[in-house]
Amino acid sequence: MKVVLESNFGELNFRGTNERGQSIQLSGNKEAVGPMETVLMAMAACSAIDVEMILKKMRQKCQDIRVEVDATRADAVPAVFTKIQLNYTITGAIKEDKARQAVEMSMTQYCSVSKMIEKSAEISWKVKVIVPEWNDQM
Amino acid sequence: MKVVLESNFGELNFRGTNERGQSIQLSGNKEAVGPMETVLMAMAACSAIDVEMILKKMRQKCQDIRVEVDATRADAVPAVFTKIQLNYTITGAIKEDKARQAVEMSMTQYCSVSKMIEKSAEISWKVKVIVPEWNDQM
Repeated sequence: MKVVLESNFGELNFRGTNERGQSIQLSGNKEAVGPMETVLMAMAACSAIDVEMILKKMRQKCQDIRVEVDATRADAVPAVFTKIQLNYTITGAIKEDKARQAVEMSMTQYCSVSKMIEKSAEISWKVKVIVPEWNDQM
Repeated sequence: MKVVLESNFGELNFRGTNERGQSIQLSGNKEAVGPMETVLMAMAACSAIDVEMILKKMRQKCQDIRVEVDATRADAVPAVFTKIQLNYTITGAIKEDKARQAVEMSMTQYCSVSKMIEKSAEISWKVKVIVPEWNDQM
């Protein structure tokens, strides 16, 4: 896997580009998303992708996944993450135990980003399921 | 530090947003940057930000930083990174030893993302300095 990072838009701003030419903007001065925020987004996305795929295999109808991530950093240099809490809200015609199981499988077995970050930070999670009214008879 | 991830644009697509409302698009089906690519971009950006700041303190005139990242993943689940090579090309009226020192300081002391990822992957780097012709008498 290859990516390229290049200076752009002046001081402390960079564009990262993948092999398909897709890019994201990163910044060290708050003009765009910062690198450590980006790691949290990558971690949540890596897991949300797992959860969406696992729920599909479980024949659960996932409409929407939202993950709120709250992270604590070391009060030192380097300011690595020490604790990360992920709160999943999964909407759809989904059984709560299936949703919990999907998140558990992602966090303990599949999510490559979490598996790297858990060597530095204590990771915990909560799962909430919202079944839309028109699906509440499932 | 807080971020939110939300489903958007259909299957396996997500938008990550930080507390300032800045966002990036992530995808599990190649429609946008993938989570593991994003981690590499975050790592390169975290380090490039360090290098740009350190070179400024060293009174070296950095015009441009480019980082090519080449990563190998485990042939297993989870497919964590096992090796990451970063090739820095730094352009400006910069002494080569200062550039090497700046990258070394970033990778061994400051870069929070690298410090987390180095627990999984072996990280190595090379530094090339390009002094534009009109600066070559420094």
